[in-house]
Amino acid sequence: MTLEEFRTYGHQLIDRITDYHGGIADRPVMAQVRPGELIASLPEEPPLQGENFAAVLADLDNLILPGLSHWQHPSFFGYFPANSNLASVLGDYLSTGLGVLGLSWQSSPALTELEETSVDWVRQMLGLSANWSGVIQDTASTSTLVALISAREKASDYALVKGGLQAQAQPLIIYTSAHAHSSVDKAALLAGFGKDNIRYIDTDAYYAMRPEALAAAIERDLAEGLVPCAVVATIGTTSTTAVDPLRPIGALTRQHDLWLHVDSAMAGSAMILPECRWMWDGIEQANSIVVNAHKWLGVAFDCSLYFVRDPQHLIRVMSTNPSYLQSGVDSEVKNLRDWGIPLGRRFRALKLWFLLRSEGVEGLQRRLRRDLDNAQWLAAQICASEEWKVLAPVHLQTLCLRHEPAGLEGELLDRHTRGWADALNASGHAYVTPATLDGRWMVRISIGALPTEREHVAALWERLQEIVRC
Amino acid sequence: MTLEEFRTYGHQLIDRITDYHGGIADRPVMAQVRPGELIASLPEEPPLQGENFAAVLADLDNLILPGLSHWQHPSFFGYFPANSNLASVLGDYLSTGLGVLGLSWQSSPALTELEETSVDWVRQMLGLSANWSGVIQDTASTSTLVALISAREKASDYALVKGGLQAQAQPLIIYTSAHAHSSVDKAALLAGFGKDNIRYIDTDAYYAMRPEALAAAIERDLAEGLVPCAVVATIGTTSTTAVDPLRPIGALTRQHDLWLHVDSAMAGSAMILPECRWMWDGIEQANSIVVNAHKWLGVAFDCSLYFVRDPQHLIRVMSTNPSYLQSGVDSEVKNLRDWGIPLGRRFRALKLWFLLRSEGVEGLQRRLRRDLDNAQWLAAQICASEEWKVLAPVHLQTLCLRHEPAGLEGELLDRHTRGWADALNASGHAYVTPATLDGRWMVRISIGALPTEREHVAALWERLQEIVRC
Ligand SMILES: Cc1ncc(COP(=O)(O)O)c(C=O)c1O
Ligand SMILES: Cc1ncc(COP(=O)(O)O)c(C=O)c1O
Repeated sequence: MTLEEFRTYGHQLIDRITDYHGGIADRPVMAQVRPGELIASLPEEPPLQGENFAAVLADLDNLILPGLSHWQHPSFFGYFPANSNLASVLGDYLSTGLGVLGLSWQSSPALTELEETSVDWVRQMLGLSANWSGVIQDTASTSTLVALISAREKASDYALVKGGLQAQAQPLIIYTSAHAHSSVDKAALLAGFGKDNIRYIDTDAYYAMRPEALAAAIERDLAEGLVPCAVVATIGTTSTTAVDPLRPIGALTRQHDLWLHVDSAMAGSAMILPECRWMWDGIEQANSIVVNAHKWLGVAFDCSLYFVRDPQHLIRVMSTNPSYLQSGVDSEVKNLRDWGIPLGRRFRALKLWFLLRSEGVEGLQRRLRRDLDNAQWLAAQICASEEWKVLAPVHLQTLCLRHEPAGLEGELLDRHTRGWADALNASGHAYVTPATLDGRWMVRISIGALPTEREHVAALWERLQEIVRC
Repeated sequence: MTLEEFRTYGHQLIDRITDYHGGIADRPVMAQVRPGELIASLPEEPPLQGENFAAVLADLDNLILPGLSHWQHPSFFGYFPANSNLASVLGDYLSTGLGVLGLSWQSSPALTELEETSVDWVRQMLGLSANWSGVIQDTASTSTLVALISAREKASDYALVKGGLQAQAQPLIIYTSAHAHSSVDKAALLAGFGKDNIRYIDTDAYYAMRPEALAAAIERDLAEGLVPCAVVATIGTTSTTAVDPLRPIGALTRQHDLWLHVDSAMAGSAMILPECRWMWDGIEQANSIVVNAHKWLGVAFDCSLYFVRDPQHLIRVMSTNPSYLQSGVDSEVKNLRDWGIPLGRRFRALKLWFLLRSEGVEGLQRRLRRDLDNAQWLAAQICASEEWKVLAPVHLQTLCLRHEPAGLEGELLDRHTRGWADALNASGHAYVTPATLDGRWMVRISIGALPTEREHVAALWERLQEIVRC
């Protein structure tokens, strides 16, 4: 594509994306397609000759857009907010348009330094002390994997430079709760710990880890000659935004010299609100934290912030130094390849920096408070209404609810719940997430897409009441 | 940022990026800044109130751009081509602008299905049989980590669901060459194998792995009761684009039932040229392959293609299935979260699809052949000239060279080489990469940035001859 074509089609694309967002509320939220539909409509073989861009754009309208579920829709209440604030989108456009890579500081100095500054701005916004250093990873899944590998190496006295985890005499043990995100399990398995060496600690009535149960599990393992290695605590679990109590958990990890990783992928954004910081009281005792700036905060995916207390534990595990990446200033700079798994890095700090500058701390706080208010409002409607139940404390912007008409229980109730949730999603009017809690199906309503105002939440409440009658 | 602001500033950004590329040749290729310069010029604290976008753009000009090394510059000969074809850039703009995520097929069906089709198009372009399935990962570093974890689990009969790698009685061993990329070492260490269990197999005069040496190493380990697990062969090493001979290596891995992972991160793009396919003759014997479409091929970073022979080995290791991600069509669809580490995925297929449609197979082939020709031309100039040496076969677009004036040897020669390479980079006229080969410094010239034509290579050759006289 030539430069002048890029200019022409680039302008067209900006208009199309603006119009997409302008008209998004009129689209069904969830894609109304069957598996394989798109694949069947595409050529099986690549084109030999280049095609006109107009043909690509036509396919976009006819084939791609109908196949999307619209995460930026005001009635998207599924999963979690994956907000792409438009300033952040422009920051990402700049990054892709410049096409620079950060293999080392020297390979594009501003890429590294803007990341350092903008991630540090977020650190301050979250109320974290200056003892934390941060870096951008792609996702919380990766950040938690990096944390558990760091914990593994610290506990094994850096066995990676010797026999590796294979040389571990007594198994290293990971502790988390049954309400932790599936990525914690996955990270522990990928890091080689093995399912037998993951302990799922009991939770209390509010789905938070019980520190006494954690203490007992650690003691039991020690008594058996096993080696407790790390605890993953969650601030804002995926199902119910439950809050594991960091202060007593942190005291235990200090006492036994365990790594404490805090998964606040979703709820971490709320820590920019002083009134929410009680949720991670005790956070300074942790060794690592993940906060997904690409969720509620509004940075275009992917931008997962990984904070560590002592970068040396990270760098000792991640660093590589082949001759072709060395430069004369290495002793004076941060080489971000030593802070994560990938070597190549795009200029992700731009999208974070654009967001922070365009909205300011107070602008972001205002929006998050709007969402918290909306969640409380909806919780109040539900609590005031017979037959409906809110199933877990509404700390943030996620509600777990069920419609429980008299006489419906067990499997029948499950069928009812799945039925109305699927019907609502299929209607295209709103997107919600069914999930299980205590072995029964319920529905998660996650409020906080950028365009979601009170009116959309009110409309959802109307629909919920209608749909259960169908 | 409001929609109308997005429209206005989006148009401005398109013009700026077009103009950036239009004027890029006038910028110094390598950033001319000192460590810490950008950080010192930025506020220490985030802004409380949102700022005007014009202020951000002013900082872009004054602070960010001077801090970049320009990878899309026609005189960028550093590292490897990290091409961002402009059609691909627009595909990425669409992805970020739509802001949809693929946690599961259902969460945005087109995201998954377009990835399946467009990666399959590349499979065909590379001349791979229909027995391969592909998926997009972020980088080759991650792809190789995924490969080694898969190999680890296959060799341990899926110990991850039991005691993990910690329960491994006899160490699993990884084989690669000393010329493999640093990411291979890193992947093996992160996967827990341990440095003691990595074998660096001898290479021949052309820096390719010696299959006899590999065979001997495997036999030695077997004799000691160790468990050979995987071989990582490189097609196109980073330093010299050396080619490990896949056919005999593949025969050995078949004979001993080892996992064969092929790192063709850089050179894989050249496999779209039938005349280059001799380089990976025997590829069908491999278990996994990585090809970075974000390098020479021209997809905007990040787009690393990971192909596997048997997806079950990948899925058994990577899959998670929490209730909130389940849907009624799971048995009919691919859930890409089970094909890699991250849960969240952006719509990366768009940038690949836009590239393939806009350039067509033949357009891409034409460009790669241009670069191969340029490399041969430069090699011919160098060979014809006294005092200069080409140090390794020029299979592709990378040249390893040294200026060796009579009487200069050893440390003195090293100092001369580093001296002129650093002077050239500091001049801003071209960017080259010094690296070591056989214990001595040399200079890698990597040809293949999108705007690099013969004239730029000829100008480089002029400069090289001048700079060594300074
Ligand atoms: C608590 C928690 N942890 C981890 C994740 C995984 O995030 P990612 O997609 O960034 O890996 C999520 C959400 O998906 C989450 O809610
Ligand atoms: C042969 C080879 N493998 C792996 C890599 C690492 O690539 P990535 O940055 O995608 O991890 C490179 C280049 O950087 C390479 O040349």
